[in-house]
Amino acid sequence: MGRVTERRRVIRIRDGAITTRPDTLVAEEPLEIRLNGKPLAITMRTPGDDFALAAGFLVSEGVLGAASELQSIVYCAGATADGSNTYNVVDVRLTPGTPVPDITLERNVYTSSSCGLCGKASLDAVRTTARYPIDDTPPVRVEPALLAALPDRLRAAQRVFDRTGGLHAAALFSPEGELLDIREDVGRHNAVDKLVGRALQNDSLPLSQCILLVSGRASFELAQKAVMAGIPVLAAVSAPSSLAVDLAAETGLTLVGFLRGPNMNVYAGDERIALRTGV
Amino acid sequence: MGRVTERRRVIRIRDGAITTRPDTLVAEEPLEIRLNGKPLAITMRTPGDDFALAAGFLVSEGVLGAASELQSIVYCAGATADGSNTYNVVDVRLTPGTPVPDITLERNVYTSSSCGLCGKASLDAVRTTARYPIDDTPPVRVEPALLAALPDRLRAAQRVFDRTGGLHAAALFSPEGELLDIREDVGRHNAVDKLVGRALQNDSLPLSQCILLVSGRASFELAQKAVMAGIPVLAAVSAPSSLAVDLAAETGLTLVGFLRGPNMNVYAGDERIALRTGV
Repeated sequence: MGRVTERRRVIRIRDGAITTRPDTLVAEEPLEIRLNGKPLAITMRTPGDDFALAAGFLVSEGVLGAASELQSIVYCAGATADGSNTYNVVDVRLTPGTPVPDITLERNVYTSSSCGLCGKASLDAVRTTARYPIDDTPPVRVEPALLAALPDRLRAAQRVFDRTGGLHAAALFSPEGELLDIREDVGRHNAVDKLVGRALQNDSLPLSQCILLVSGRASFELAQKAVMAGIPVLAAVSAPSSLAVDLAAETGLTLVGFLRGPNMNVYAGDERIALRTGV
Repeated sequence: MGRVTERRRVIRIRDGAITTRPDTLVAEEPLEIRLNGKPLAITMRTPGDDFALAAGFLVSEGVLGAASELQSIVYCAGATADGSNTYNVVDVRLTPGTPVPDITLERNVYTSSSCGLCGKASLDAVRTTARYPIDDTPPVRVEPALLAALPDRLRAAQRVFDRTGGLHAAALFSPEGELLDIREDVGRHNAVDKLVGRALQNDSLPLSQCILLVSGRASFELAQKAVMAGIPVLAAVSAPSSLAVDLAAETGLTLVGFLRGPNMNVYAGDERIALRTGV
């Protein structure tokens, strides 16, 4: 618990000068997520916010959609020889009456969640499992200048990154640019799951008045997580993939990439970006 | 096939000026890997080198260790309604007599390969499945100045990155700094699997005289892939995680992080780095 960073000895080489000192590293540990006692997935994550991570993962999978469906999340005893708790196994119990998905082997091997055998099947899988259509009422409309200011706010709020350089960050902002929540993890998908899971625990899904900002690239998986949480705007500091853009276009998600200062690319859903006359 | 990039319309905002133009994106599609006809895993990857990706994945999983164990890799018919091939499903057949691992449900959900319920279990899983101890004969010994030159060579050899900004790269270098192979993918683990799989196809495992350079961070999973391929030196442009450092220390892998020009950190296996007297 609280093992967000760990210390290791490191040999530093700086312009030929060699020193040895302790270094702060981002912690990485496996987390097994069980659903009603049955193993569902294992993810390599940075410890902390594990219950939120598990809840958010299940939102992304289409299993959970509202706080009322979540009965409990507990740490199970770990698998160490002496039976001590590693805090690396969590069991999520659904409220009685909540449908438990059929977790077949085939389903389980879909390591990146709802992907299929081709891009179109992947898009279809998200569409059919989405609990909330993207429905921002009142319509979210943001100025490019507002988006431009968000990465600096994300970076300022990152507590661990400056010490380790090894953490991805994801944050939720209001349409007015207010930072609502931020999570960090060695895996960017985990950082988003932690945000979404926290929102589920607070019974604030769908996040229909939120902007999701991620510190890296926008893959299909991240776009999927935004869609599953009902988030209308996903902004990434780096590049999106083709399938992320396709998913955004099909579901009505606004997707902004290469968000760097006043420069950005809008790949889908430009109706939410307040564009003025071009040059 | 050959869908390494795709074109999409994008709205570009540059200092307030708005233009619309086609943009080149890194392609992302699911790939299902089957072993002797049985679904084993699905990964989101950039199409291309799919057979190498599948072979390398199986090396990382401890299933394959030599070209003689690989009978064939073929594309299966995809799941489209008209039965046409999506080139997103590959079936790997092992040579008769090669042990087929027991692929249980529990095993399958280990999305990041050989992870367990705690960090130590994860390390143990790699140790027990490793086909090759890290055994560089003659001993690999590299000057920091040689390592310092590698990231620029990697970048120069990246064909797709400059167009999309969305690809991870992984490359193999000789101890003299010669670029031996480079692969790019939307997922960094896939880029490494493609390198290792290609090496297996060429019957050149273990890669005991190679330096593996990755464009991003060094997670446990990447360190695991280096260990499973018998690679003695892993260098990353960015930060390692705690578990990657632990695995390197336990297996004898040399792990270098934050490799940026003449500056770098050596986290494990410093006997392979030619360190001169410190300041």
